[in-house]
Amino acid sequence: MEACKRIAQLLEKVRNEKPLVHQITNYVTVNDCANITLALGASPVMADDILEVSDMVSIAKALVINIGTLNSNTIASMILAGKTANKLNIPVVLDPVGVGATKYRTDTAKRILDEVKISVIRGNLSEIKILNGIEGKTKGVDSTEEIFLESNNIEDIKLMAKSFAKNIKAAIAITGAVDIITDGETLYTVENGHSTMAKVTGTGCMCTALIGSFMAATNNSLLASLSGVTVMGLAGEIAFENLDKVNGGTGSLKVGILDAICNLNEEIILRRVKINEG
Amino acid sequence: MEACKRIAQLLEKVRNEKPLVHQITNYVTVNDCANITLALGASPVMADDILEVSDMVSIAKALVINIGTLNSNTIASMILAGKTANKLNIPVVLDPVGVGATKYRTDTAKRILDEVKISVIRGNLSEIKILNGIEGKTKGVDSTEEIFLESNNIEDIKLMAKSFAKNIKAAIAITGAVDIITDGETLYTVENGHSTMAKVTGTGCMCTALIGSFMAATNNSLLASLSGVTVMGLAGEIAFENLDKVNGGTGSLKVGILDAICNLNEEIILRRVKINEG
Amino acid sequence: MEACKRIAQLLEKVRNEKPLVHQITNYVTVNDCANITLALGASPVMADDILEVSDMVSIAKALVINIGTLNSNTIASMILAGKTANKLNIPVVLDPVGVGATKYRTDTAKRILDEVKISVIRGNLSEIKILNGIEGKTKGVDSTEEIFLESNNIEDIKLMAKSFAKNIKAAIAITGAVDIITDGETLYTVENGHSTMAKVTGTGCMCTALIGSFMAATNNSLLASLSGVTVMGLAGEIAFENLDKVNGGTGSLKVGILDAICNLNEEIILRRVKINEG
Repeated sequence: MEACKRIAQLLEKVRNEKPLVHQITNYVTVNDCANITLALGASPVMADDILEVSDMVSIAKALVINIGTLNSNTIASMILAGKTANKLNIPVVLDPVGVGATKYRTDTAKRILDEVKISVIRGNLSEIKILNGIEGKTKGVDSTEEIFLESNNIEDIKLMAKSFAKNIKAAIAITGAVDIITDGETLYTVENGHSTMAKVTGTGCMCTALIGSFMAATNNSLLASLSGVTVMGLAGEIAFENLDKVNGGTGSLKVGILDAICNLNEEIILRRVKINEG
Repeated sequence: MEACKRIAQLLEKVRNEKPLVHQITNYVTVNDCANITLALGASPVMADDILEVSDMVSIAKALVINIGTLNSNTIASMILAGKTANKLNIPVVLDPVGVGATKYRTDTAKRILDEVKISVIRGNLSEIKILNGIEGKTKGVDSTEEIFLESNNIEDIKLMAKSFAKNIKAAIAITGAVDIITDGETLYTVENGHSTMAKVTGTGCMCTALIGSFMAATNNSLLASLSGVTVMGLAGEIAFENLDKVNGGTGSLKVGILDAICNLNEEIILRRVKINEG
Repeated sequence: MEACKRIAQLLEKVRNEKPLVHQITNYVTVNDCANITLALGASPVMADDILEVSDMVSIAKALVINIGTLNSNTIASMILAGKTANKLNIPVVLDPVGVGATKYRTDTAKRILDEVKISVIRGNLSEIKILNGIEGKTKGVDSTEEIFLESNNIEDIKLMAKSFAKNIKAAIAITGAVDIITDGETLYTVENGHSTMAKVTGTGCMCTALIGSFMAATNNSLLASLSGVTVMGLAGEIAFENLDKVNGGTGSLKVGILDAICNLNEEIILRRVKINEG
């Protein structure tokens, strides 16, 4: 079956099952993450205290970990919730926001990858390059210079993504002008979306929340990642098209993204999706 | 005087007095709670550090405690602020978000009810059932099974709400398709609102913020609860009616709820309100 | 060159350079602060853990400190980030939200002013009066009563602002119906904006985020302050004009403010700005 058909079916499944998605995330975009999860049809719960995250994740169908505004309390909660999720076979999706910007973020991302089995990582190109480099380093590569991909050639990036996915046994989603999604074997590129989305804070976090919501209704991490990235791109381009051309801006764009998710259906998906394999 | 007339008068009073409403709440919906408080005509202040909550609540006319993203720091602040409010006869409104989902939330809600005199509790049916069960337990009921109301029959729920309100000497507001508000003696049902509101995160929290804002301008906790629930319902149904029927969704609905609160007046209230007593 | 022309040029510079603006701010309005920073053309990063703020501010072009929901953890981070910024000649903008409301806020603001060199302070009249009083006190003035400006006469306020700016060697921006911006020598008043902006939470915080964004592209703190205040005022009045006159309210106003910032250009600035010197 075609990928876009399977995305539409998974969306339907999410809407029917309304799975609970536990999100330990940042305080900048948390409201948008909750709202986009609801708009898709899943059910968000945000809880980050160490005394309740194990209980909370136990009743959820997926866990999203987002390090956007990490601190020592929430890191401990992320690790504990992640370990509990692993024990219960609840999938964990990681958004390594800003990894590489500070040593603290890089160390934290490494620690999470070391201690928690992750099903999907979604980041921008620079974040995924950094993570790939860290993992390379931890696998004993001598020259740290060599393990960071310098090239921005799309074919090189695809190879890096595939190798990284294979290495850590997770699906990798790199979002940007062209999105790249791979589980190490199959690789998709998606060309939906609009450049203005980058001017709304949290479109990356929201995309990860969507992936977590899809992950809560399937055990296919490649399909969940592809679905989250595609749906986010569709919402962004539809919202952009609906913008008032004189007075519209990023305030309206964010509102329109949530609206578009609510109104998404199979017909829209089949007509608009721009997915390529390989 | 009719209930709807009294709601309109209390709204006018809030707009004239602009009372300060101290809210210790969660980081998911805090911005919406502040904005809806302002839209109504009251003045919000969010502050949760243990070193300032007593000072802050002392200059406020009401305190809202919302356990949506509780942690050990904020729980201590909630208790301290609540006790200070009690000493100063400042009313306290509780939103027991997610109680029952984890032991931590249930224990925290119990602790707050034990240590702070609450004027109003607003929750959904499942949250109020849990709280009622806890209170039953703490009052020495033997069988914990029996104290949880299993029935979803509206008359049974009304009886539970009345008994719970009488037991803890607070007004109880249960929001849902039909809202139930009671102080243990008088009971109102409200049928305003729209089901889509449940797809916007924080409509419950916002309703509680409205109750807190009304509570800041009256010592009638039943009227304040009825007013908050009714105004929230009106705003939701007006926002839904104003939605673009093709492209509108929950993004626009949230914006429209805030807009509708701003534009609310006596004429709209009298014309639209669907309140029944008993 | 006229002030409005220089504002338009600085806006263009921000859009070209996309400077990173590190913001340690409150969890109520943080999303709006990030979005308005992006809408202007700068790049926000919110990070508040003590273990990463020094690294983060080191890669930024300006630091914004906002004490809206301060706590012991974030205060320590504010001080450390501020000191690091000072060492690296990165300008620091302070928003003393709610100073005077509690002793804790007042003590914290004083501590920040004592330990960190600030380039710009933006607050409402009451906040700036309090800060000016604190500084007076710390300079050995005997009667604390006398140092607080009781008058609300605009000429008295201007004198206070100039004297305070000279005293602490920072630009002072007082926002209100008429905004006052001064570096102790030159003083501007701005009469853009709309009174309804006060009914949206965080318009003050957003204004400070704009000042921080401008400050990241110039070393002229007076011009950055004037630019931030003016652009915020323009956005507010444009958003108000664009409101649906029947159904519009503060929900739409906030969305419209972000939209207006996106669409701002030299022509709009030159046509609309109401700045007076002296």
